[in-house]
This record gives sequence, C-alpha cells and structure tokens, in this order.
Amino acid sequence: MLTLRLTPAQIDRLIRPTSVAVVGASDKPGALGATLLSNLDRNGFAGRIYPINPNRATLGGRDCLKSVADLPDGVDCAVLAIPRAFVLDAVRGLAERKVGAAVIYSAGFAEGGEAGLAEQQEIGRIATAAGMVIEGPNCLGCVNYVDKVPLTFVETLCRQPGGPAVGVISQSGAMAAVLATMLLARDIPVSYTVSTGNEAASGVEDYVGWLVDDPHTKVVAMIVEQFRQPQAFLAAARALRRAGKLVILLHPGTSSAARESAATHTGAMAGDHQLMRAMVERAGVVFAETLEELGDISEIALRCPTLPTAGTAVLGESGAFKALTLDLAEQIGLPLAALGDADSPLLRAALPDFVPVSNPLDITAQGLSQPAIYTHTIAALLDDERVGCVVAGIIQSDPVTCAIKFPPIMAALEGRALAKPVIFAGLDEGADVPPERIAALRAAGIPWLPTTERAFRAVARLTALSRRDQSDQCLPPVPIAALASHHDVIPEYLAKLLLAPHAVPFPKGQFAATADAAVAAAEVIGYPVAMKAQAAELGHKSDAGGVILKLADAAAVRAAFDRIHANVAAYSARIRLDGVLIEAMGRMGVEMIVGAKNDPQWGPVVLAGFGGVTAEILHDVCLITPDMGEAQVIAALLGLKQAPLLTGWRGSAPLDLPALAALIIRIGQIMRGNPAIREIDLNPVILHPAGEGVVALDALMLVD
Amino acid sequence: MLTLRLTPAQIDRLIRPTSVAVVGASDKPGALGATLLSNLDRNGFAGRIYPINPNRATLGGRDCLKSVADLPDGVDCAVLAIPRAFVLDAVRGLAERKVGAAVIYSAGFAEGGEAGLAEQQEIGRIATAAGMVIEGPNCLGCVNYVDKVPLTFVETLCRQPGGPAVGVISQSGAMAAVLATMLLARDIPVSYTVSTGNEAASGVEDYVGWLVDDPHTKVVAMIVEQFRQPQAFLAAARALRRAGKLVILLHPGTSSAARESAATHTGAMAGDHQLMRAMVERAGVVFAETLEELGDISEIALRCPTLPTAGTAVLGESGAFKALTLDLAEQIGLPLAALGDADSPLLRAALPDFVPVSNPLDITAQGLSQPAIYTHTIAALLDDERVGCVVAGIIQSDPVTCAIKFPPIMAALEGRALAKPVIFAGLDEGADVPPERIAALRAAGIPWLPTTERAFRAVARLTALSRRDQSDQCLPPVPIAALASHHDVIPEYLAKLLLAPHAVPFPKGQFAATADAAVAAAEVIGYPVAMKAQAAELGHKSDAGGVILKLADAAAVRAAFDRIHANVAAYSARIRLDGVLIEAMGRMGVEMIVGAKNDPQWGPVVLAGFGGVTAEILHDVCLITPDMGEAQVIAALLGLKQAPLLTGWRGSAPLDLPALAALIIRIGQIMRGNPAIREIDLNPVILHPAGEGVVALDALMLVD
Repeated sequence: MLTLRLTPAQIDRLIRPTSVAVVGASDKPGALGATLLSNLDRNGFAGRIYPINPNRATLGGRDCLKSVADLPDGVDCAVLAIPRAFVLDAVRGLAERKVGAAVIYSAGFAEGGEAGLAEQQEIGRIATAAGMVIEGPNCLGCVNYVDKVPLTFVETLCRQPGGPAVGVISQSGAMAAVLATMLLARDIPVSYTVSTGNEAASGVEDYVGWLVDDPHTKVVAMIVEQFRQPQAFLAAARALRRAGKLVILLHPGTSSAARESAATHTGAMAGDHQLMRAMVERAGVVFAETLEELGDISEIALRCPTLPTAGTAVLGESGAFKALTLDLAEQIGLPLAALGDADSPLLRAALPDFVPVSNPLDITAQGLSQPAIYTHTIAALLDDERVGCVVAGIIQSDPVTCAIKFPPIMAALEGRALAKPVIFAGLDEGADVPPERIAALRAAGIPWLPTTERAFRAVARLTALSRRDQSDQCLPPVPIAALASHHDVIPEYLAKLLLAPHAVPFPKGQFAATADAAVAAAEVIGYPVAMKAQAAELGHKSDAGGVILKLADAAAVRAAFDRIHANVAAYSARIRLDGVLIEAMGRMGVEMIVGAKNDPQWGPVVLAGFGGVTAEILHDVCLITPDMGEAQVIAALLGLKQAPLLTGWRGSAPLDLPALAALIIRIGQIMRGNPAIREIDLNPVILHPAGEGVVALDALMLVD
Repeated sequence: MLTLRLTPAQIDRLIRPTSVAVVGASDKPGALGATLLSNLDRNGFAGRIYPINPNRATLGGRDCLKSVADLPDGVDCAVLAIPRAFVLDAVRGLAERKVGAAVIYSAGFAEGGEAGLAEQQEIGRIATAAGMVIEGPNCLGCVNYVDKVPLTFVETLCRQPGGPAVGVISQSGAMAAVLATMLLARDIPVSYTVSTGNEAASGVEDYVGWLVDDPHTKVVAMIVEQFRQPQAFLAAARALRRAGKLVILLHPGTSSAARESAATHTGAMAGDHQLMRAMVERAGVVFAETLEELGDISEIALRCPTLPTAGTAVLGESGAFKALTLDLAEQIGLPLAALGDADSPLLRAALPDFVPVSNPLDITAQGLSQPAIYTHTIAALLDDERVGCVVAGIIQSDPVTCAIKFPPIMAALEGRALAKPVIFAGLDEGADVPPERIAALRAAGIPWLPTTERAFRAVARLTALSRRDQSDQCLPPVPIAALASHHDVIPEYLAKLLLAPHAVPFPKGQFAATADAAVAAAEVIGYPVAMKAQAAELGHKSDAGGVILKLADAAAVRAAFDRIHANVAAYSARIRLDGVLIEAMGRMGVEMIVGAKNDPQWGPVVLAGFGGVTAEILHDVCLITPDMGEAQVIAALLGLKQAPLLTGWRGSAPLDLPALAALIIRIGQIMRGNPAIREIDLNPVILHPAGEGVVALDALMLVD
C-alpha cells in the first residue's frame, strides 16, 4: 500500500495546470519570466495565464496583476521568477489565494546558509499548512511533454514523439535538462521532467509516486543525491515495479569526495551509499553508474518488448570483436548464453558450414553476400530458450552496407509472438548511417546504440535485475520480550542470553560473578574453557587483557579469574566487571562477521562477510536486507571477493553456507522484530564445514 | 637500436607502390578484384596497374596479363584477389618475377587446419627467401591515405584532412576498417591502415617499426591479439616514444574465454596477458580497454599540443555533474588537482564571488550571462602549475547556447605559449551542436568528446602514462658463475647457497646430511631452529611432513631428523633426501611472495605480492620488469589491494618497503644476468617493520 505525502490530485495542479500565474512576468529577452511566458505561448498553453508585475499594465496582450494578492482564488500553479528576497512573501500570498502549487527557481536557500535554510523551512511550513505543492527552491521547474506545459525558464519546445515515455525526476535541474536533451535526441519520448531542487515541501519520492498510475510513463529515470523520504521512495519503487514500470537511478555522490562537496550545492548530504543501494536495489531499482548508462538503460527498457534476462547472445562479424566481447563480458559480469554446435540445431541450420556455433557468434563478412544469415541466426537465437537477449554488433560502414544489413536484421522480428529484446549496436561509431535506417529499427522495437560497449554495459545492468529474486515473502519478525528491560550497550553475556533462545548459535557457556562460580561453570561445560571479562563499558576485551583461552583445570580457572580482574583494573580504573563468561573452546574455522544496524531512515539491514584484519582492508562484506530468503543470501555471500574460501578451496571441505545464511536471516528477523535494537555485532562468527554449522564467538548489542 | 626484419624500403614497396599487379582482376560488381581496381582508379593511382585474369584480354581499358609469369620483373606490389587454392602458386610466380610485396586476402590458411598452416609456412619461406613482403593471408589489405593508395577490397575514398595523423596497425582486418571509419568520422587524419591477418611473413611489429620515421604519423593505434616478435615490438615502441609518437594498444583476448576462442579465427593464441602488459607498458605503450577508448585516446594524443599529465582540472556548470565527476575519478583512478580558494589566486580572481574555487569547478549557469567566465577560468587553470589537463564538461543544449559558450572556451587558448591539453566534453550527448562549432574546436587543438565519461577515461589512461617513470637506467645484471653446474629443479639449500652471496636475504642456516651434522649446525646457529627436508624431487615439503619448527635442543634436532626421514619415506618411496636444512627461527612478519620467470618470448619479469591462502584467491600480486628502479617498484607495491598493510595499518609500524624493493630489484638483476634461470620462487618472504628488512624463508629455482 502506497501512502504519499501529496495526493495525485495535488501534483496534477503543478504538472497539468489549467491556470498559471507568472510571478515576475517580463518581456525582457533572457529574463526568466519572459522565457517562461514565451514557453507557454510557443507550446500553445490553452489555460488561463496571469502575468504578475507591479510595473506593467499589460504584457504580451495580457493584463498584468500588481501582486499575488490580486489573483483570484484557486489558481492551479504559480511560477516564481523573482529574486530570492521576495519569495517568502509571495509564497504567503499564494497560500492565501489558495493557489495549488508553486515553482520556485531562486537559489540561495538551504544551500546558502542559516538564514536561507530558515526561510526554506518557513516556505515548507506554509505550503504544508495550505496543502500547496512547492517545487524547489533552486530548481529548473518542470516540463509536461504530454500536455505541452513547460513551466521552466529553459527554452523548450515540446515535440513529443508519442508512445510510452520516460519520466525524468531529478534533484538537479541541470541534469534533468541534460537528460531530456539526451533522450529526445534519440527519439525517446519523454513524459515529464521534474527538477525538485532543495525540496522545501515536495521531494523526488512524491513525483515518483505520482508516476505509478500515470498512463504515459513506462520508465522512470532519476538523478538523486539524497532521498529525504526513504520509506516513501521504497514503497513507490515497489508500486512502480508491480505496475510493470522500471525505475533507473543515477546517484551522484557515491565517493567520499563527492559527499564532501554535496553540502555546497543543493543542501543535500548523501547518505550511506551502500546501505541505500542495498535497500533500493531490493525494491527493484536499477542503478546506472553514468549519464550514458542512464540514457542507454532507459532506451532499452522503453523500446524493447521485455527486459533482457540472463543469457545474452551476441551476433558479430569479426573474430577480434568476439574476443573483445568476451573480455568485456567477463569484466562487467555479463552472462553469455553457452551455445555450441552440438546443442544448437536451430542455429546450426541457420549458419554456413564454415561458421561454428558459438557465443559470441562470428558470422564473418559472409552476411554481405548472404544477408539472410542475419535473419536466420537472430530468429534462431530468439527461439532458443537459453537466450534472454540478442545484441547484434554490426559494422555499418556506409549507406550501401547499411542497406544490405539493416533490413534482414529487422526481418528477424517480423511476425514473432516470442518477444525478447534485440539490440543493435554499431561497431564503427560515427559511420554514415542514414537516419531513416535508425528510425526503422526503433519503430520495430530495436534500440540502436552508438557503440557495442554501451550496449553490453546496459544489458549487464538489466540482466542483473532479472536475476534478483524480487519475491516479497520472508520469515516473520522475531520479537525478544526480555529486551524491554535493557538499554544502551548490552555486554556479551547478556546479549548471548537474549539471543541464544532465538536460534543464534553460541558456544556452550555460563556467566560467573565469582571465582567459585567460574570453576563450577567450567566443570559443567567441560575443560578446556575460555574466560572473558564482562562489563558494558568494556568494548575491547582483548585489548584490556580480558580474554584468556585454553584453561585446562580448576586451578587455571581460579588464576585466570584473578588475572582478568587485575588486567582490567590496570587497563581502566573506571571499569567495574559484572563478572566473567566461561565458555567451551571451539574448533577452528573460517572467521566471518555478521552484524546488523537499524538505520533511522532506511530501516534495518544485515551485514555479513569475512572477518580478520585483511577483511577490514578489503571491505569484503555485503549488505543484506532483512527480507531476503536463503537463496538470495547465499548468492550475496558467493559474491564476496574471497568466496572461493566458502565453497571448498584447494581440497578443503565446502563450508556450511546454509547455516551461515540461516544465522543472517535470523538476525534480520530479530532486527525486524525489535525496532529498539540499534546494532548487533557478532564478530567473529566461526564458519565450519558443511553440516557442522556456525558459532558466534562474541556478541554485542546496542539498544535504544 | 632498432633492428627490423624488413627494411623501410621493403615495406615502402607495399604501402607506397609505384606499380601494382591485380591478380584476379575483374569488372564483376562486388568481386574483390573489381573493387580493388575501382579503388585505385577512384583515388587516382598514378602508377602502373597490371590486371591479371586468364579469361580477359582487357579490363577497364587496360590490357590483361594471363598470369603472374607474364609480369615484367620488379613490380612493386601484387594484390592476390583469388581463391585460396591458387595463392601458393601465385606467390611462387611473384617471387620469380622479383615482385616487392604481395597482399593476400584469402582466408583458410593457419586458421583452417594443418594443410592451411603448411601452405602458409611455405608462403612465408618463399617470401623470406625472395625478400618479398607478404601482407596476410586472411587480411583486408592496406590503405595509404597519405598517397591515396587503397590496396583493399573495402570501398575506400581517401579523403585526408591533412596534418599529423593516426597510423592504424591491426591484425584484424575488420577492426582496422572499423577504426578508420571511427577516426575519419571525427575528422581525425589517418595516415595508413595495415591489417596483417595471419602474418605469414610480416607482422604488426614490422609496420610499427616502419612508422618510427614516417613524417605523417604522430599516433599509432593498434589492435593486436598476439605479438609474434615481442622483442621487435618493444624496440619499435621505445623508438616511437623517443620520436615523440604515442602507441595505443587494444588487446582483444585478455579473458580466458577470449583466449580459448582465439584459435578459431586468426590462428593467433593470445599469450600471457599480464606479462605482456607489464612489458609493453614499460615500453611506453598506452592500453585502451575498448574501441571507444582507442579512438578517444588517439584523438586526444593527436589534437592536443602535449599529452595530459597528472592533475586534471574540470570545469563544470552543475553540482550534480561535479559529484558524478568525483565519483568517476575515484573509480577509474583519475587524479584531480587539489584547488581551493586559499591557494588559487588566479582562479579566485576569474570567478564570481559566489562560486567557490574547487575542482571540479562548478560555475553554475552563470556562464550564460557572463561568457567571459569560461575564458578566464580556463586561462587561470592553464596558468596553474598544479594542473596538467583541463576538461570542460559543458551543457550544449542547442545552437543558441553553443554560440554563447564555444567561443569564450576557445578564446582561452588564444596567444598562449603554455600548451596544455584542453578537452571539450559535452554533457548532453546528441544535443544539436552545429558541426562548424566542433570543427572550430578541433582546429584550435581542442578535442570534442561526445560524453564526459569518455573524456575522463581517456585522460585517466594518458595521465597514468605520464606518471610512469620511463627512464631506462637500471642496475647491471648480476651473473652467478656457480649456476653453470646446475640444471632443472634446484632444491632449497642449493638455491639459497647460490643466491645468498648476491644479497638475497635468507635466515642463518646450514645444510646437514646426517643427524650429527644437523645438531652441530643447530649449535652454531643457536636454538630454536627449524629443520627442512631437502631433495630436488620434494616440491611440497610441508605436505610431506618435511618441515619441523621450533626445535629447542640437540635431542629435539635428532628426533626431528629421524621423523622427517620417516615422514618423507611414508609420503613417497621414490624421493631420496639429500639431507636437511637447519635454520634459525625468525620473527613473525607479513607474508609476501617474490618470484621471477624468464618468458621465452618477452624475457624476464619479476612477480611480487602478498602471500598466504587469501592472496592466492585475491591474486594480490604485481609484475615488475627487471629494469625498474626503487621508486617504480614501490609504486607498484603500493598499488596492491592490501597495500594499507604495508604502510602502517591500525597503528602498526610501516613495513620495510625499501628492503622489499631492493630484493625485487636484485632478483631482476639476477634474472637478467642468468638467462638460464627459468624461474625463481621465494615464498614466503617475511616483511618486517621499516629498517628491519626482509627475509626469504624458502627458495626454489628452475634452471635450463
């Protein structure tokens, strides 16, 4: 169920207004208010326009109002093309006149310091109280290409090619304009562009949610540095996927340098990228790494009848291209369908004898003299159930060559019920390809990409999406009733007491407050034992000399009890031990880490990976959302850099991945069942050979 | 000193012929011999043409010869546009007529099986004996754009824009044609394209060497799957660099999948990519990862007055672009100059007050109203010695916007003596940019790249080149005289005896053939000691129970001596021990590997990196050519994934990198001084804190 801060009807008043007030209307060339007016006129805006300018009686044949106070009640949208200093008053006046929405171009609010931030917050309050949508401040406005309403100061002529379209939602106004230029240059229909700027009272999440039911938008292309309403975005993204629409996200600010610079331009501080990415991918969103990719993925998602699935087949005309493709596929993780002479009768029949079946397929220059090879091989690939997508890497050369090759490639799709993506990628960028050839491909549902590299990168992103399990079923939350009486740092023995009843595996152990109790515990557990100092304040037991291993008898336990107390006292006079934990010594195994945190914005997430010093340097961990099933968790673990250690390295036994996955899933259930838990840290978790389980040697919890 | 298999004069007869025989001349549209003839006529070939066709008296107004035997002696070049079956006889005939060169289009030789390979070898023998250049077989011929001589069956019109040009040398004919199309579409002059195909008697190395003294060629763009004459190529590449020319290499076949497929198309088996790469980069060659990059790097190298050096500065107009640039720069390792308000007075003075100095620089949309900002900021960046290259990431939008932005960007270069690269990169690919605007940039020495991503990737490759130390000075070879009496596997104790006198650090140790000798050795060395079984056949001592550590006294040494003999006997009855090595027990440290191999093709190379199980999974090693100095070796080590372990991880001491570098360099000297050494393996090498050195615990040598 998708609950939005703004109703579709509210946003409609911004994007599809029937009346527009232009605050700061002008006829001075280059003035924002002038370009906006001419944009409306040039695109034949049929609604009522209210120019507002205290110094003019008329503008372009329309009567001017002196101020927003002169507006009739209930105008749909007002565009503020005025200096920053006048914005706040204007917003107040618009709210009084029950204006439905306002676009604020001016910069210098949250990104301009304390005073600007305060004014922006005030604008937000006024808008929320009045039920008014605010786009901006610090934005380029929005363009409704469907109804030809460009509320922007960038000169815009809405030529809409028609058909399903890409909706562009961007915090950056410049990037929204750039992306629209890129898409329209490729004859990709755009439904709307919305730039949200500083997001005083509406954010990208609101507009994405509004697109769920929009009949014109099939693909949503986003450029977002920070989600201010993460849960609303995740809900909207899931609703879009359910509606069969794809969301593609370019997220500037993944690097630390970019995060540092973020504060200076839109007031957005990028969040924890990895955490956000795990959550957003889980909601079915595809990440683009570059603007190129954002455009390329959008085109494929829009034009192709379905999204690519695993098993790309590549048709080529050169051995070197085949090798380059294999290289790139390996580098970017694009899975190619395994095709050979023996197992591909359809393809075998479509090829000349001297061309072996392989993938990539190298038909050599033979297609020049036998163009039907293109038709037959592509048809055979589309009929092959191992193939999820066909990329044709074609040498275009010149118009004569294009005339030979393009028609038989398109012919492969004629009269086919089976709809899989076919993507045309030119090898020789810049070759003289007649535009009508490209237009014909597009009309047939075949994207034309300028280089093969780009085709493969975009397909790789979409193929990865298809391999994600999007199912929403997950095990129920596991509440821990006893948790209510604890808060702040929970020391190891208590954390283990709380978690152990809920199937979190620990060594056999017992807490002991006295040396006698420690000996008694050791006798029950069986020697040798480990002894570990226990106190909430003692974060690093080992550093304090608070851990002693391999205690073989009662005397050793007594001696260790005294030694640990002495060590910790020497380490810090402020720490008072609750006692010690006596535990069975376990077998060696591979050191892993399992942890979890409850992000105030994004919710709980589980972290798992390799432990030890090396792992810290290599950051060999993955983030797992707490709703994933065993298969997804194991897939994530097998994506770790040191994954070969898990599956049987150099003759050693494969490790117990199902047990590790079960622990990870269980920690996720516990996080979902106990919102008060801020963090859980199981480090190390010892992973044993298959069938022999996992054991968490240490445990730490932070509870609110 | 560059010694080539073919002299420039020989190759001139192929590329710049004054007379051409067309074997298989035709006027049938689409026939290879017909296209070749029309290519020559269309491009106004001024030399003598000899059409050869037994079934025609004349062709296109020229008298036809019946066969190659009818040719006059000393024709420069013959092109064989005939079926494979007739090629060998034709080559024999051409050699008899003292023809200078032959182009063989036909496929089906080395790549077609045993018989084809034998024929190809015979062609090679005939050509070598006659001093005839052979291009191919299985090639697309060559095009001399400078003199307008297209000896290819691809329809070609040599429109040469003039000026310094790119020479294209490719094994794949298709790729040579594709690259020429790409370059010419960008108005990049091309001097020659040569496709070498199966390389029966001439290879890419020969043509690259020929380009060293060519006055028309400034950049050499290569597509090569296998170098058949590695040393000739390295020499030619170094000669080109000395001549101020850049070589850029695209190497299809880096992946294992590509290597497997290589055998099927040109008969070339890709060699060890990493080894080749280390050697070729050391010779000053830049690797391109994709065709896109090959074109982009070529354009920058050709058009810019100098190559980019470290410290790229980026001029942008949007905060989101700034963040995207920081993200990409981090990902691809592009070093950006650090620029701030406090330390950049020139830049500060060039900017409006509200724009902070930073890199990337975000001048916002202010340039639209104050275009001089472009001129002044770029000029200030060019005057800043921290800046090695300027990339302007510009929103082009439409012709009106281009008219505002392009001229002030070009104006920044006017009248400047200081020549650094300025690269124009469009943000909005496909924007309506008038072609004359792009032409003007190019004429001013400013490459125009279609996307910013591509500009950054290309600059990153070239910047990496500028950071490589290209100096050729290196320490002298270190011959080991005693080596002459050894061959095959040299066991540890002997390897250490041979290497220790040459400053390879080992633990204090002594070989012992008897238990008494072992005890005596231990007494001299001092307890505790390690004992290690010694035999050439014993590859894995530990697996055989052949290593016992921490022997504390004479009794332990005696017991260990017996145990080791028993263990090894139980492990394999065929192994007879020479004795044992007694060594001092060393301190713990970080486990590294240092090794070396002498590649029969490429020569010696040293390998260094992290040891241990994890390292094998992570392949955390680097290849170092044996002529590198300390700074380069340390730079390579600091590029390892786990490099943070070397420089002081979490408060631990920095490690002794100079000692490790010295060992690596010394092993390189030893490899260069002893060509008989096939492999040296020091594993593990224990690296201690700074000032405390390294110790190689084990040593193995393979000697021819």
